[in-house]
Formats: sequence, C-alpha cells, structure tokens
Amino acid sequence: MRTSRLEAFSDGVLAIIITIMVLELHVPEEPSFAALGASATGFLTYALSFVYVGIYWNNHHHMFQVVEQITGSVLWANLHLLFWLSLLPFSTAWMDESGFAQVPTVTYGVNLLLAALAYYTLQLAIFNGGSGDRLRAALGRDLKGKLSPLMYISGILLSFVAPWLAVAVFVFAALVWLVPDRRVERFLASEGTAA
Amino acid sequence: MRTSRLEAFSDGVLAIIITIMVLELHVPEEPSFAALGASATGFLTYALSFVYVGIYWNNHHHMFQVVEQITGSVLWANLHLLFWLSLLPFSTAWMDESGFAQVPTVTYGVNLLLAALAYYTLQLAIFNGGSGDRLRAALGRDLKGKLSPLMYISGILLSFVAPWLAVAVFVFAALVWLVPDRRVERFLASEGTAA
Amino acid sequence: MRTSRLEAFSDGVLAIIITIMVLELHVPEEPSFAALGASATGFLTYALSFVYVGIYWNNHHHMFQVVEQITGSVLWANLHLLFWLSLLPFSTAWMDESGFAQVPTVTYGVNLLLAALAYYTLQLAIFNGGSGDRLRAALGRDLKGKLSPLMYISGILLSFVAPWLAVAVFVFAALVWLVPDRRVERFLASEGTAA
Amino acid sequence: MRTSRLEAFSDGVLAIIITIMVLELHVPEEPSFAALGASATGFLTYALSFVYVGIYWNNHHHMFQVVEQITGSVLWANLHLLFWLSLLPFSTAWMDESGFAQVPTVTYGVNLLLAALAYYTLQLAIFNGGSGDRLRAALGRDLKGKLSPLMYISGILLSFVAPWLAVAVFVFAALVWLVPDRRVERFLASEGTAA
Repeated sequence: MRTSRLEAFSDGVLAIIITIMVLELHVPEEPSFAALGASATGFLTYALSFVYVGIYWNNHHHMFQVVEQITGSVLWANLHLLFWLSLLPFSTAWMDESGFAQVPTVTYGVNLLLAALAYYTLQLAIFNGGSGDRLRAALGRDLKGKLSPLMYISGILLSFVAPWLAVAVFVFAALVWLVPDRRVERFLASEGTAA
Repeated sequence: MRTSRLEAFSDGVLAIIITIMVLELHVPEEPSFAALGASATGFLTYALSFVYVGIYWNNHHHMFQVVEQITGSVLWANLHLLFWLSLLPFSTAWMDESGFAQVPTVTYGVNLLLAALAYYTLQLAIFNGGSGDRLRAALGRDLKGKLSPLMYISGILLSFVAPWLAVAVFVFAALVWLVPDRRVERFLASEGTAA
Repeated sequence: MRTSRLEAFSDGVLAIIITIMVLELHVPEEPSFAALGASATGFLTYALSFVYVGIYWNNHHHMFQVVEQITGSVLWANLHLLFWLSLLPFSTAWMDESGFAQVPTVTYGVNLLLAALAYYTLQLAIFNGGSGDRLRAALGRDLKGKLSPLMYISGILLSFVAPWLAVAVFVFAALVWLVPDRRVERFLASEGTAA
Repeated sequence: MRTSRLEAFSDGVLAIIITIMVLELHVPEEPSFAALGASATGFLTYALSFVYVGIYWNNHHHMFQVVEQITGSVLWANLHLLFWLSLLPFSTAWMDESGFAQVPTVTYGVNLLLAALAYYTLQLAIFNGGSGDRLRAALGRDLKGKLSPLMYISGILLSFVAPWLAVAVFVFAALVWLVPDRRVERFLASEGTAA
C-alpha cells in the first residue's frame, strides 16, 4: 500500500483538530480591551496546542517522506496517534477554563505524553513494515523523540507542585521542537548526493 | 471516472466525522479527578465510535485499492454510506448522555447496522461497475462483512434485555475488525507474484 | 492553472458543509422513541440538505472531469458557489427549528436558488476559460440545469400558499437529480471511442 | 521537499476556517423577515471574512504554482499564517455580536494586519528557500501586497474615529484583491512562451 491516502486522511484530521480548537475560544461578553485581556489565557493555550499539532503535522510530514510502503499495522498506529491528538481540544479547553488548575493541567500533560508515545509506536510500526531502514537512518539517535516523553512526565509531576511550572515545561518542550529539525532534509540530500 | 476524488472527498468527510465527535465531550465543571471520572463513559463511547469510523476508513481504503473505475451509482452508494456514518456523532452523544438507556442504545445499534448495510450496498455497486472481479477475488468469502450485520442485530435485540450487553457486543464487533485483515494486501501481493 | 487544487479545496469545503449540519441535530432530551420521533423533521431536513450537497459535489466532480485549465475567474466563481452552499446549514436549521414556517422555508428556497445560479455562473466562467467546448458538448441541452432554478422559484412562491408544498417541490427537485446523469460519462466514453 | 502536502494541509485548514464561521451565524429566534433582517450584519461580516479567506486561498494557490521546493522554515511560516487566519472566526464573531463596537473592530483589523504580515513573512521564507527567483519574478513590484498592511493600519486607526469607517476600509481592501490578479498566470504563460 502506498502512503498517499494515509497522508491525506491524517492531514484532514490534523487540519480539523487545529481549527476546531478555535471554537472553544469564547467571544468576550463586553467590547473592551479588559474583556479581551481576560481571554488572554485562552488565546495562549490555543496557541500552545496549535503549535503542538503543527509540530506533529511537521514531523509526520517529514517521516512519511522516507516511507514508501505501509502495512495494516501502520494504518492503525497512525489512527491511534490521531486519537490522542483529537483529544487536545478537550484537554486544552479544560486546562484553560479551570484557570490552570492542578488536575486539568495534569490531564493536558498526560494527553501530550500519550500522543508522544503513540508517535513512537507509529515509528516502531514503520520500522517493522519494510521502510524501516531509511527512516532509522534519517532519524539518527532521535534524541528529541526520546527526550519529549521525559519532559512531559516531569511536567506532569511538577503540576502537583505548581501547575504554572508544568505549563512552562510544556512551552519549553514545544520550543525545542520549533527549532528547525534538518535530519530528514539532510538525509534526503545525502541520498541525492550518494546516488 | 477515476477514484481519486471520491477517495479524497470520503477522506474529508470521515476525517470530520471522527474529529467533531470530540466536540460532544463536555469539559468537566470542576477541576477534579472525580469530575473527569464522571466523563469516563463519554470518553469510552467516543473511543468506540472513533474506532468504528477508523475501521470504515481502513476498509474503504483497502477496497478502493483494487477499484480502478467507478460509475455514478458508486458515487451515490458511497454518499449513502457517508450519510449513515455522519449520524454517528449524534447517536454516540445520545447513548452517552442518556447513560446507556435502552432506546438510545438501540438507536446506536441501528446506526451501526445501517452503515454496515450501506457498505455492503457500496460493494455491490462496485461489483456491477466494472472492477467487480478484482474486488470479489480480494474479498474472498467476506466472512467478517457478513457476520457484522448479524452482530449488530443481536446487539439491538440485547438492548431490550440490558443495554450493557448490547454495548459489549458492539465493542466485540469492533475488536473483530481491529484484528488486521490482510486479504487485500495478500491479494495485491499475489497479483504482483503472478505478474 | 490546473484544476487539482481547486477540486481539493472544494472537496474540503463540501465535506465540512455536509458534516457540520449534523451538529444542528440536537440530542433528544429524553431516552424514548417518542423523543426520537420529535427529532424526525430535523433528521429529514438534514437528509434533504445532505442530498443537495451530495448532488452539487457529484455535478462538480463530473464537470471538472472535462475541464483541464482554469482561470482566476473560475476560482472566484467556484468560491461564490461554495459561499451559498456554506449557508445551507444555517437555512436548514432555521427551517427545521421553526417547524417549516413560511419565512424560513422561503429562505431555504432562496438559498437553493442562489446556489443553482452560482453553479450556472461557474459553468459560464468555464465556458469563457478555454475548456468551454468540451464542457458544452458534454452538457448538451442541460435541461436539468435550466429546470432547477424554475423549480426553486415555484417552491419559493408555493411557500406563501403552504410551506409543505414548497418542501415537496424541493424534495422532488432533489429526486430529479438523483436519477443518474450519464451525460459526462457518455461524453468521455464517446471521446474514447472517437480517439 | 515537495509542496503537495503543504498545499493539501493548507487547503484543509482554510476550508475549515471558511466553513465553521457559519456556525457563528445564529438561527433567528422568530420565523419572520424582521428577525432575518436582524441577522443581516452577521451575514455581511460572514461574507466579508469568507472573501478574505478566499483571497488568501487564491493567493496561496497562485504562489505555490511557482514554488517547487520548500524548506522547514517555509512549513512553519505557512503554519504561522494559518494561525492568524484561524482566529478570524473569533474576531469576526466578536465584531458582529458587539454591533461593530470600537475594540472588537480594532481587533478584527489587527487580525487582518497580522495575517497580512504572516503572508509577507511566508513570501520571504520562500525567497530564501530556493524557489525565490521565480516567485520574485512572478510577483513583480507586488504593489497590492505592500499596500494591504497600510490599509489595515489605517482601518485600525479609523476605528478610534468611527468603527464603520474602518469596516469600509476593510471592505475596500477586499475589493482591491477581488479584481483578478493575473501576475502569476501571465508569468507562467510567459515562461511557456520563452521555453
């Protein structure tokens, strides 16, 4: 099976997740800057989750550049990833509406953690599915991929100290991924050179 | 007519169905694990319907791998399938919000049944549309396809005894489909070997 | 400019329109067949608008099979069509929630009429855009395309007598389009024969 | 990296933004033309934002016709543009529900301005990413691209005098873009001639 339809379906789901989160941004009651300012945390949590979905789309896009053939297990591992990502609008809205209370912040961190583990599972499914060698070569030591779950776990634990610390960790983890990751590009270029 | 745009449109509709169901998951009122626990059935019914839409996408994807030409009847049979699937967010939300009451659980089962029959009708439309032989060969005896409606009917009937029994049947029917189905993959591989 | 991205974007918008209408179907308050029956008109208007969006997608799909090149005017004529179709969830919900009152039924008919005129304008833009001859040949006398606006107008007028008569006309007009339309398929086949 | 998946994802996000705005159009309480008339501003702001998203889709489509290779920075610059556009349903709804009050109108203008700047940043990222020369040649002096931010800024400033003046400027700026822009088409044609 080729990857084009898996990519198209994932693009669709990710595009919807990233966009319907805006429906949780409630229009301020009063037409004042003060009322807009009161929506500021909603705006910032929206931006944070937007960036996370963007990171996943970006990494997904890069990953499938080096994958040529997929199996049924890859399809399900991919749906499993989309499942956890599809819950982000829920956990984002709860964290924001509760004013960054402890339990919703823990929930948000658990959501990020489960999505990261699902992404890792998807990589494993691809490794076992025929295109493994190219992806393994392109990913290298995959330091960021291994570090992320640790960051989410430390964020979850810090929620019990102070939720704002956890949010700081989640923001930091997003920034780490925002730094352009040239592994796949470099790998494709090196293949071009070698050929 | 080629199948690419039918696939793209179906991907779009299925991606939206699978994602907007999360909008029915209401953010808990209180920021506590107890409040989150009270949302547990909502989460589980969401997961169940997510898996069902995933199964349909998966099967749809496999089916159209062996279909090359489509007719107008296939287009409408496909829209008919999408229609019943598009009602899943409605019947899922009702079943959950009613706390798995009898009538909503029956309705959910009828929804699954009608989607399954629509899928069957779509297969028939393809059989009559030119690519029938390859699909028929790929599907084989299609035991799962024939068993599913029977499972949904027994679930519907069991709702009148106890709705939880029906839900157990719907979960079981989903698990049967989750077991990787290698028919199409094997068929395509055998064609490759034969060629 | 090629048509692929215009088709993809239109598929996306139509897929969303057809699917978010289900969000207007409110979950019944009580878990009974009586409560479900009270939602019956909502279900039927949903089905009617689903069929209409399906018809537009179908015709759009067929039309762009014979279009190879598009201009900027075609892009805007297409967006214009999508605009009127995007209002269908609004006018459908109003007609249903008002219990088929006169003004909402008129509004629904006007919405159908404006979408039909926008579709006609899109055809004209294509005629002027280079691929006109093939499309003109494929459409033939385009009796259905010319009859539809007349049916919508008569529906709008009948709303002032009795809204249910108007709804009957809108259902009839949809059924006329549901009858498979083989013009484009036959045209493509005849081209194949001629070549 | 090729552009096809970036285009598909952007199409998805833009299709959803343009369509979910209709969910903010509340169904009138009473089934009368007067009640429909009371929704008129909601309809007009919807139309305005629909046209703006249509303009961005149109320009995005044209731009990526002359782009062949993209880098990681282009992916993020594109997500940055989609982020600001995804806030349009929010700022549109606020402007409308407040009856074009000062602060929401300023917010709408700021939203348009930030989207325009993000589009400009995306162009710069493409200039630096390898396909720069063709795009630069196709855009020419890019007068409209440079004028738009100035129009949005003057609209924002005019909001403090009278919000309706600002809205007039936003409508005018949209009309300027609606005039067909043949630069890319002409460039592609000239390339064809030169070749």
